[in-house]
Amino acid sequence: MWSKKEKDIARRAFEMALEREGLELLRKIKEMARTAENRKDIWQIHDFLTERRTEIDQKYDYRYSVLIPIFGRLVREEWIRLDELEGLDEDKITKIKIMASLE
Amino acid sequence: MWSKKEKDIARRAFEMALEREGLELLRKIKEMARTAENRKDIWQIHDFLTERRTEIDQKYDYRYSVLIPIFGRLVREEWIRLDELEGLDEDKITKIKIMASLE
Repeated sequence: MWSKKEKDIARRAFEMALEREGLELLRKIKEMARTAENRKDIWQIHDFLTERRTEIDQKYDYRYSVLIPIFGRLVREEWIRLDELEGLDEDKITKIKIMASLE
Repeated sequence: MWSKKEKDIARRAFEMALEREGLELLRKIKEMARTAENRKDIWQIHDFLTERRTEIDQKYDYRYSVLIPIFGRLVREEWIRLDELEGLDEDKITKIKIMASLE
């Protein structure tokens, strides 16, 4: 169960992670495009975008039932910091920490 | 039927058109990436590339049985000029001209 306060925290952290990951992708695409020289390079950008888009679409799945593992992954990948989840109950934080250190 | 000489001319014109279209796409992608500001812009680049790649893959089909309509289209779209096909027999040139002016 997620309280109203927890839902607000979760939503904000989720959006922040997505925003950061989007900006990083933007930076990468700009760099790839800037240095691209031929058709092969263009198709490489396309393949890369196809892969990243699929990954991002699958990862950012805002359902409360899967939010704990998602936050675990986002912390592990450093798109959010644990302190940005402050205010979630201790049990959730513990689970997220465990998930974040897996793999 | 395509003579050896005609095949050489056709191949060179075909490659030249593909090269030019690739360079134009490269220019466009660089510009889109340069001015992109957010995730929506990135997905727009991806959608655009998916569409252009499919179109280019389908269009550049080097089989002698379909080369006349392809050259017609490439002339119409200005990826090659008629004088770059000089050396093909008159009958082929006439058909290409007709195809080029269709639509």
